[in-house]
Amino acid sequence: MIFSEPLDTLWQRRFGQDPPAGIPEAVVPFLRHRSVRKFLPKPIEPAIQEALIAAATSASTSSNLQLYSVVSVQDPERRARIAELCADQSQVKTCAWYLAWFADHQRLRNAAALVGEECKGLDYTEFMLMAAIDVALAAERMACAAEAIGLGVCYIGALRNQPPAVAELLRVPDGAVGLFGMCLGWPDPDANPAVKPRMSLDSIWHREAFPDEPSIGDYDARMAEFYQQQGMSTSASWSQKSGRRVDEHHLSGREILREWLDKNQMGTR
Amino acid sequence: MIFSEPLDTLWQRRFGQDPPAGIPEAVVPFLRHRSVRKFLPKPIEPAIQEALIAAATSASTSSNLQLYSVVSVQDPERRARIAELCADQSQVKTCAWYLAWFADHQRLRNAAALVGEECKGLDYTEFMLMAAIDVALAAERMACAAEAIGLGVCYIGALRNQPPAVAELLRVPDGAVGLFGMCLGWPDPDANPAVKPRMSLDSIWHREAFPDEPSIGDYDARMAEFYQQQGMSTSASWSQKSGRRVDEHHLSGREILREWLDKNQMGTR
Repeated sequence: MIFSEPLDTLWQRRFGQDPPAGIPEAVVPFLRHRSVRKFLPKPIEPAIQEALIAAATSASTSSNLQLYSVVSVQDPERRARIAELCADQSQVKTCAWYLAWFADHQRLRNAAALVGEECKGLDYTEFMLMAAIDVALAAERMACAAEAIGLGVCYIGALRNQPPAVAELLRVPDGAVGLFGMCLGWPDPDANPAVKPRMSLDSIWHREAFPDEPSIGDYDARMAEFYQQQGMSTSASWSQKSGRRVDEHHLSGREILREWLDKNQMGTR
Repeated sequence: MIFSEPLDTLWQRRFGQDPPAGIPEAVVPFLRHRSVRKFLPKPIEPAIQEALIAAATSASTSSNLQLYSVVSVQDPERRARIAELCADQSQVKTCAWYLAWFADHQRLRNAAALVGEECKGLDYTEFMLMAAIDVALAAERMACAAEAIGLGVCYIGALRNQPPAVAELLRVPDGAVGLFGMCLGWPDPDANPAVKPRMSLDSIWHREAFPDEPSIGDYDARMAEFYQQQGMSTSASWSQKSGRRVDEHHLSGREILREWLDKNQMGTR
């Protein structure tokens, strides 16, 4: 386990304050997550891969429908092409195991067709949301299990940048849409990615009802400190950077997702 | 820890076969998940609640945008009303801690507006998907952490049955949409929910590309055995039941989700 900060340090870095008394020790490893992008050139054994896929599919899945698929890509040329499609993020090429995660209505459509069921509700937004949620539950249970044995994990949202090219490369059937990639590997101990500050619990967690006004509390100030610690020369605050991140000019190809989902009969109604 | 099947038993129940050699012991707890619906009348201490929210927000979140909120509901009347809105599932009333999870664009819109950013891209489908994925990653990291200390968890998709009523009850602002509820508590040892079979790894996990034809393998047969073991008198197969689950007549109110997201400026483009 290369990440092993004690609780006090961890909570300070995450939330800028001391932890409350009584945090159970067994929860602490789940607080240590950070995205790992530098890996040792060491493979992940097949039994570990199977264990991790089994952990993923052990997650809750709505009505036990299992509306997901995952594609592992190990061929170096195919990896290079995926990296190219995903904003050239180098960890896509260098990780020990690369997974592309899909919302997948097609397997159920197919199985149901064989017994005469038409699945006419699947094109409702409900089942696109359900699939997206179930994919993420599965992936995150895998991430937690992977971290429990010392692996590092990095999600790659850029799998959504070029859906048609991803579909061609991985022979994705109609009715399945790539949601994100995931890089796994043994963390390079020479790289030491920091735990990133998050908003205070009070910004995220509301009691009984939403507050009158949302608040990010002291988050801009804490993130400014973090940018400085990380040697990032930015004068923009988290609010400014994040506001710009969600303007119309940073969609990186993802502006076609509505159309792409429609083409796949997902969320059209 | 009330759930403690050894690996061999667990893998047999989940996949109908013996596990491969070399499954790491630390992954096994992540395979033991089942939904828990019967709880002891014993509260979850505040420090544990804080630990679990902290675990949730320690999950990956795309571009560190944190597009989620969670509302805990402990007031008995409000709980009863939530249960009523969620297909009368009794665990909503009886669990020690009830959480409603939301995709939330509003906090970022608000923070960005204060620094003059307009967030014009947020109405694209990309950011609805991103929020839904990030909500689920956070919730599932919490679920794993909760199970690590012996708590039981049950997701409640029925939070999506009546979005307008949920919005009124929990004073949900425009730009936030409830995705699912979560019941947490100490499992009643007298109830002993079974691990549910899942499709074989080969049905879900594809190497290098999707297969020519999707397959559920022997899943209908294994589920038929499971229904029998559970004393469920059904002659329908998993394929039949699941096909019917996604027909147009079982949307339980969720047919308005497209319209509701549009109203909230989520995924309109």
